[in-house]
Amino acid sequence: MVSKNQKKLIRSLYQKKYRKQHGLFVAEGKKVIKELLEANLRLHSLFTLDSSNFDNIGMPMYNVTEEELKQISFLTTPQVALAVFYTPEVSEIKSEGLVLALDDVRDPGNLGTIIRLCDWFDVKNLVCSMQTVDCYNPKVIQATMGSITRVNISYVDLREFLMHKTLNSRVFGTFMDGNSVYDEKLPKEGIIVMGNEANGISMDIENLIKDKITIPQFGSDQQTESLNVATATAIILSEFKRS
Amino acid sequence: MVSKNQKKLIRSLYQKKYRKQHGLFVAEGKKVIKELLEANLRLHSLFTLDSSNFDNIGMPMYNVTEEELKQISFLTTPQVALAVFYTPEVSEIKSEGLVLALDDVRDPGNLGTIIRLCDWFDVKNLVCSMQTVDCYNPKVIQATMGSITRVNISYVDLREFLMHKTLNSRVFGTFMDGNSVYDEKLPKEGIIVMGNEANGISMDIENLIKDKITIPQFGSDQQTESLNVATATAIILSEFKRS
Repeated sequence: MVSKNQKKLIRSLYQKKYRKQHGLFVAEGKKVIKELLEANLRLHSLFTLDSSNFDNIGMPMYNVTEEELKQISFLTTPQVALAVFYTPEVSEIKSEGLVLALDDVRDPGNLGTIIRLCDWFDVKNLVCSMQTVDCYNPKVIQATMGSITRVNISYVDLREFLMHKTLNSRVFGTFMDGNSVYDEKLPKEGIIVMGNEANGISMDIENLIKDKITIPQFGSDQQTESLNVATATAIILSEFKRS
Repeated sequence: MVSKNQKKLIRSLYQKKYRKQHGLFVAEGKKVIKELLEANLRLHSLFTLDSSNFDNIGMPMYNVTEEELKQISFLTTPQVALAVFYTPEVSEIKSEGLVLALDDVRDPGNLGTIIRLCDWFDVKNLVCSMQTVDCYNPKVIQATMGSITRVNISYVDLREFLMHKTLNSRVFGTFMDGNSVYDEKLPKEGIIVMGNEANGISMDIENLIKDKITIPQFGSDQQTESLNVATATAIILSEFKRS
């Protein structure tokens, strides 16, 4: 069963403020929870319809009814389990390889997809502006499919970060009027900045970007306004890695 | 104002069955509606908080209150307008260039993103298996940002289509064990099959695919299970078009 205090705590974790305050976040679904456990994230509590899903773990596990799970879940169709984890410490940003930087990406699904892409393309460091959606937002956790444990994610003042970067590396950013990413000779090290869903990269960040790149549009019509930030990130990371 | 009958009609259009029966679909938001109007889609009715958004169109337009809009909207946060359009006729599949085929893509957001990608990469024909989510699902319309009017989308028996294709072209499909898409010499014409979110390409379709390709995973860990179908489509279309 779920106590009143547990309910109150879990519901509070849907807000960033309380996630920070408690140092906790929520994950739902057997698969995601198992991946987080395998990555040795410290478990706070686990609520499940069927405890046989989680054998031999010796954890604070509670059996719940479907009704109880529904009360604590943020999903329309709750999965078989919901877990509360301690937020892991962020490692220092390593000055090696490619670093992806996000300038105010707001959609949780987009951030989740981008984290999965970093994991796929072996981009170990993801740097987010303070206005970027929190990576411990339950919708982000749902969309990452566990890869959040394999990417080092920091929230920083992006302008400060780009101005005082210890990396002696080039800073790339995607713009409508940049050079074709297919024609550029792309390095193995560097920082790639991707912008906000509606407004792209902000002016004060644009000023710090020397290498403007773009994904060319094909056909004669060319009415598509822009690519979604997650699909654009997919193509850009693929281009940096393929060469 | 919105009449009882109008409310009933609009609500019914959230189900594929009634969209087919009436030959109508719903679009929300000023921007999407304007794009559909510009593409000369035939308007059935338009409901808006502010008719000054839609000047000089001479259409069946109704002023509604926020309360009324909320009652007919499928969005949590309704936009300023909701429109009902007649479903356009599907043109014949043209046997030229690249054709993208979807084998049971179920998520409306993924289909919407894929339609936008087809538009960006000038892929004029999108062929969907019968089990693929309906492209007139309101969530798909929302995600396409108007590009649905510039891509010819057909729903077919995908097995039949691939067996009896008039195109004398190669059939590509993405699989975990395919050849690296970065190493293949990719043609300007052909059919590219993308699979279902959970199960990939089904067995009976796999048998009809000679060219198996894959997007290589980078790094030593390689625990990421797979890429999301929309981001994988982004990378594959980019590879076919860049060369």
